[in-house]
Amino acid sequence: MQTYQRIVLAARPKESVAPTDFRLETVPVPEIGEGQLLVRNHYLSLDPYMRMRMEDIKSYAAPQAIDDVMIGGTAGEVIASNHPKFAVGDKVVGMLGWSEMGVSDGSMLKKVDSTQISLSAYLGIVGMPGMTAWYGLNKILQPKPGQTIAVSAASGAVGSVVGQLAKLQGCRVIGIAGGKAKCQLVVDSFGFDACIDYKAGNLFGDIKAAAPDGIDGLFENVGGVVMDAVLNQMNPFGRIALCGMISGYDGQPMPVHSLHKVLSMRLMMQGFIISEHLELWPQGLSELAQLVATKKLNYHETIAEGLAAAPEAFIGMLRGKNLGKQLVKLV
Amino acid sequence: MQTYQRIVLAARPKESVAPTDFRLETVPVPEIGEGQLLVRNHYLSLDPYMRMRMEDIKSYAAPQAIDDVMIGGTAGEVIASNHPKFAVGDKVVGMLGWSEMGVSDGSMLKKVDSTQISLSAYLGIVGMPGMTAWYGLNKILQPKPGQTIAVSAASGAVGSVVGQLAKLQGCRVIGIAGGKAKCQLVVDSFGFDACIDYKAGNLFGDIKAAAPDGIDGLFENVGGVVMDAVLNQMNPFGRIALCGMISGYDGQPMPVHSLHKVLSMRLMMQGFIISEHLELWPQGLSELAQLVATKKLNYHETIAEGLAAAPEAFIGMLRGKNLGKQLVKLV
Repeated sequence: MQTYQRIVLAARPKESVAPTDFRLETVPVPEIGEGQLLVRNHYLSLDPYMRMRMEDIKSYAAPQAIDDVMIGGTAGEVIASNHPKFAVGDKVVGMLGWSEMGVSDGSMLKKVDSTQISLSAYLGIVGMPGMTAWYGLNKILQPKPGQTIAVSAASGAVGSVVGQLAKLQGCRVIGIAGGKAKCQLVVDSFGFDACIDYKAGNLFGDIKAAAPDGIDGLFENVGGVVMDAVLNQMNPFGRIALCGMISGYDGQPMPVHSLHKVLSMRLMMQGFIISEHLELWPQGLSELAQLVATKKLNYHETIAEGLAAAPEAFIGMLRGKNLGKQLVKLV
Repeated sequence: MQTYQRIVLAARPKESVAPTDFRLETVPVPEIGEGQLLVRNHYLSLDPYMRMRMEDIKSYAAPQAIDDVMIGGTAGEVIASNHPKFAVGDKVVGMLGWSEMGVSDGSMLKKVDSTQISLSAYLGIVGMPGMTAWYGLNKILQPKPGQTIAVSAASGAVGSVVGQLAKLQGCRVIGIAGGKAKCQLVVDSFGFDACIDYKAGNLFGDIKAAAPDGIDGLFENVGGVVMDAVLNQMNPFGRIALCGMISGYDGQPMPVHSLHKVLSMRLMMQGFIISEHLELWPQGLSELAQLVATKKLNYHETIAEGLAAAPEAFIGMLRGKNLGKQLVKLV
């Protein structure tokens, strides 16, 4: 009997996520029925939103069920098909979870062309993270040439795309990231005008120095003190796309002290979830794919090897250990 | 020689505003020049925004200068005129400050009709506070019938109008105010569906109980813990008009802990200053005047007597001692 491995949620996190919150299982490869297909996943995407799904709280999505396969985006290849629209060998992206294989009826699966763009990029810059950047920048921040845009978690899968897109639109772009290596990546590979290391101990002053004309748009992935520091430099009528608050995902207090700036500077702040704007994905992904194919956008990946490495890689990502997009390579 | 009294800013506040921050002066009544007119003020408006102007900080307006007459809206009567458009006896509203009289060139002065609506109301419900309510509700919250709207500082000059306008649009309206007297006014005179006394010690629970279907729109005048409590009950795609944060105007820490709700509930928050939307004042004030004249909107005033009472009345208002619109009667 052929088998494959998958990882299920074993327990809800007690504050920080622990390896024991996950359980690796070996299960038989199923027979596929009429209209179904079987995918061997090549890459698993690890993303901050998964942390919120692990909690049993009211949010924008149902919580991840205990003992179910961990939710997650995947990119792989069809290895068996009873589905008229998918053939063996097709490259596909979907949401098959932390699992080496997955059965699908094709409804949440998309065929992709991996000749121009690598398969893994469909989980990053030309996938959900890229789309998140595209939407938050273009639809919420609506930057104008010459404006200054700040991006937290700037080296990450989302932030790195935000900054590059803003640069292409003629903005000055300030990144905020944790540590020298990330900041170097942000400036050297992603072309930001400046990157502030929030671990260097002078966040407020460094942001002020890097944005002498103030900040017009903030793409916020972190929350807490990082957000406070940028709020203090916002210009009148500035706009804030609230995409993530990873600094508080473990439930730690994350008070924001500078919210009065929203009033005194007449700021607009909008929280958003990219899965609620599916109607824009074709346009956004098409633009991103073209920019990647023509080398106008760069991306960086941190790749863990093998499904069993996923929990550690995920925990590391939540602690900011990854550089760029965090993936798990399964094949 | 005829004289009149005025109050100037003597010193910037050290934390809380103190009576010694003001100085009462007696000055000669000036001769008016060509194109000028002289107004005897009947009412002085006291408003929370004045507190921010007393600080020497970057904000949406220049700070109030030391030794200058305190800024403020006034309603009065023309008592001398060399101006073709104003005659002695005209009732006018303007920004003549904490002063029994004022000279104007007519540019910031508006003639009003006090036969249908009392002169003092032009400083409140059919003036800047009413317009603030009208704009924040209609242009930012954009309520739909059946939605639940929460209003902090609900008994105040702005909050009371927000709630009444929202009721007229078919919303359920929850007020938040400090103390039983205010809450009674909010429900009995202004027709809110419920009013929560934030001093009663169960703010979070009381809001939850009063808004069983959650809150779709928040008109925020207070900030801090009041804002936190409402944020926790916001529905997806809720909207927040950030009009004031009076709980922090003395510089006290006012951390907001529930900002993550802006993300998880995909909220939109917009800070605004009504003086930046002058193009809408004619429409808004006309609608408000009609609703007041036809008794569809109520208002309540707390009136201090005589200019010398202004500092104490202002300090009292900042501490929430007033019921409804705080005025000083000068004549």
